[in-house]
Amino acid sequence: MSRITGLRVRDIRFPTSREHDGSDAMNPAPDYSAAYVEITTDALDGHSGSAFVFTIGRGNEVQEAAIAALRGHVVGRDAEALLADMGGTWRGMVHDSQLRWLGPEKGVMHMAIGAVVNALWDLRAKRAGQPLWALLADLSPEELVELVDFRYLTDAITPAEALELFRAAEPHRAERRQRLEQEGYPAYTTTPGWLGYDDDKLARLCREAVEDGFTQIKLKVGGDVDEDVRRMRIARDVVGPDIRIAIDANQRWDVDEAVAWVGELEQFDIAWVEEPTSPDDVLAHAEIARRIAPIPVATGEHMANRVIAKQLIQAKAMSVLQIDATRVAGVNENIAILLLAAKHGVRVCPHAGGVGLCEAVQHLSMFDAVALTGSVDDRSIEFVDHLHEHFVTPVDVHGGRYWAPTAPGAGTEMLADSLDMYTYPDGPIWSAEGASDPMRDAIRIA
Amino acid sequence: MSRITGLRVRDIRFPTSREHDGSDAMNPAPDYSAAYVEITTDALDGHSGSAFVFTIGRGNEVQEAAIAALRGHVVGRDAEALLADMGGTWRGMVHDSQLRWLGPEKGVMHMAIGAVVNALWDLRAKRAGQPLWALLADLSPEELVELVDFRYLTDAITPAEALELFRAAEPHRAERRQRLEQEGYPAYTTTPGWLGYDDDKLARLCREAVEDGFTQIKLKVGGDVDEDVRRMRIARDVVGPDIRIAIDANQRWDVDEAVAWVGELEQFDIAWVEEPTSPDDVLAHAEIARRIAPIPVATGEHMANRVIAKQLIQAKAMSVLQIDATRVAGVNENIAILLLAAKHGVRVCPHAGGVGLCEAVQHLSMFDAVALTGSVDDRSIEFVDHLHEHFVTPVDVHGGRYWAPTAPGAGTEMLADSLDMYTYPDGPIWSAEGASDPMRDAIRIA
Repeated sequence: MSRITGLRVRDIRFPTSREHDGSDAMNPAPDYSAAYVEITTDALDGHSGSAFVFTIGRGNEVQEAAIAALRGHVVGRDAEALLADMGGTWRGMVHDSQLRWLGPEKGVMHMAIGAVVNALWDLRAKRAGQPLWALLADLSPEELVELVDFRYLTDAITPAEALELFRAAEPHRAERRQRLEQEGYPAYTTTPGWLGYDDDKLARLCREAVEDGFTQIKLKVGGDVDEDVRRMRIARDVVGPDIRIAIDANQRWDVDEAVAWVGELEQFDIAWVEEPTSPDDVLAHAEIARRIAPIPVATGEHMANRVIAKQLIQAKAMSVLQIDATRVAGVNENIAILLLAAKHGVRVCPHAGGVGLCEAVQHLSMFDAVALTGSVDDRSIEFVDHLHEHFVTPVDVHGGRYWAPTAPGAGTEMLADSLDMYTYPDGPIWSAEGASDPMRDAIRIA
Repeated sequence: MSRITGLRVRDIRFPTSREHDGSDAMNPAPDYSAAYVEITTDALDGHSGSAFVFTIGRGNEVQEAAIAALRGHVVGRDAEALLADMGGTWRGMVHDSQLRWLGPEKGVMHMAIGAVVNALWDLRAKRAGQPLWALLADLSPEELVELVDFRYLTDAITPAEALELFRAAEPHRAERRQRLEQEGYPAYTTTPGWLGYDDDKLARLCREAVEDGFTQIKLKVGGDVDEDVRRMRIARDVVGPDIRIAIDANQRWDVDEAVAWVGELEQFDIAWVEEPTSPDDVLAHAEIARRIAPIPVATGEHMANRVIAKQLIQAKAMSVLQIDATRVAGVNENIAILLLAAKHGVRVCPHAGGVGLCEAVQHLSMFDAVALTGSVDDRSIEFVDHLHEHFVTPVDVHGGRYWAPTAPGAGTEMLADSLDMYTYPDGPIWSAEGASDPMRDAIRIA
């Protein structure tokens, strides 16, 4: 038996706004950040579990405080017991009634639970000597159903229906796993499409994306419609007619505005329209989807929890569901969302980018590909080529595909040197005078 | 000209769980708490602005950190400029793109903005020498519309429509104000109905509620259906057929369960069914409302923002909208929600209780009664007789009605002695050994 002996939280920030990396219509100057948690035990194996919440700068310290508030749920507890019953461990935190009040099940507190849950999965996978996707795909259908909290979901999926889905996939696991390991999982790239890049950089990055084997790219839109038309024309000219181009408005529009704006851009053949409006607005997404059909609506990266996911599906508010590894309460809740999508035939194309989101979310898609839907060809995981060098086991993306991780763990551990270097505000990157002004750019943005 | 010189945050907790005050099916052991903020200036008038986020214990320190993260938006700024343009001040915080990522517009970060916004309103009202409701009701229709952010709302209400609503009410303001001051505003009470009370206490408090002039009470339900039937029978026997009894499930049910449970209780004549399921679940509320009609569904205390409010109205998911003073981003966002309700003919019966929620929310209903809908008779504000003694200007509720505050401010300032006494974990109430164990009751609840 071993005990959880520590839960350490760190405020890690990268000054990405200096280069306009990650700039879009709602987020002109993000500093990609991680509220990073490391869970340690007294076991002799020396394994720890690491994970994080991705944020874009200011407020990362609030996220840090929320993770620290979960210490009592973890530290001092029996590690084997927590890890063996991850469904119960999840419920212990999510249903802590006092903490639940702070959401409920949304925002800072819910994401904090996600980080702790994901760190525990990282620990469990390291102890098992397996990458997380394989660990999950080796669990029995009964064990998988136990991970999920079906409260608020039973009007869309019951535990019995979930069990049936996992059981139906079970005979195909070995064959699907082999195929995944041999062929990888499709990726698309957002690297060319940030709003802050000039035309030459846009054209060059589009060209490189095609050369790198990607068959879909994505452009940020929603700042200025004439600019968007111009940038879309450049992109379409560079990539030619056979590469899919998705557009991402990052929640910029109201309903009528979304429909009109998309109308200006549809001449360029749009693969999907992402986050046209508020991520809470199921009904507006449904209205937009109806009015811009057959162009698909995509959303999900800011979907607060499985209840919003359920409604997006019920209302036919989108046809591309973009799960995020750190927005909801971790692996367990994302399995619930994958189940909802599987039952209702919605394709899942995860959101990634940021800091470590690619490293984390690939495990969920690969688990789905082996042990749930088995669908791969109509799906793809977002890829942005930023900040992977700070991770112990960075993604392997080449030839336009993610290649299945083989290292034990969830992919969410950062390098010790990176953690020290980018700690805010005292790490060397930030401690230069003025660099860590917390209100840098805030007033201008407002 | 004066400057904002300080933003002080304090962690204030009351050990209410010791007496089962506030216990319901989801929240068996709440410690009513306030993440309390005081904003000071260098003006010679000595006025400060105070407000808070209401929480139920653990995690209050996370809420405190979120309020502190807003310091840069307030401290050092020109007080007159911030207060004169409260619409712009609101947008400066809510649209801070880095902080927005932590919601967006929901949970800990959004509620923190609400506290700061409300503290600024408290300061403005004190400077004006007016109670907040009267200050708001004296603003011009144009000034009121300026307070509201219509992003994501225009499919349900436009700025022009909002202006029209305020203008239509303007000729009636004086007469309505006089009526409010003479007749008060209807209240209902939840004091009898907490789950943790025994039968004798339930019966006694029901009797007292009727004697005190209340014409509606509310019972918590959702723990055990046979228990609920038994408790409802006691309550109905005590109050007789003419007093309305609402029930509150505090998000306990899925759809089918809600319908079945209400079926067991409808024999007792139910005034409304409150929070039957997840507060995010617009579609489930709509389905429940359809199936239990004509019994009304009520919800809103955990409604994350105006976008959820809009959808609840659009989907006919409830017919009683329960705004809360500290769940959304303050007075401005609640004005947006009042406008949505006014345009679509939905009655608003605010959630209150907790710590200071009665003191705060009454100003919004009274503003609505004077300057917006003018509807009073079909509405009522929740009242719970707890913790009012800690406020500088506690509510005046007697004869089953709230009486319009006359003191300048928003009602949200606590007494200095109370703040010192209940500071967590170092105040005298908590510093007794063991009293401040942060995980008290957590494991049991989980």
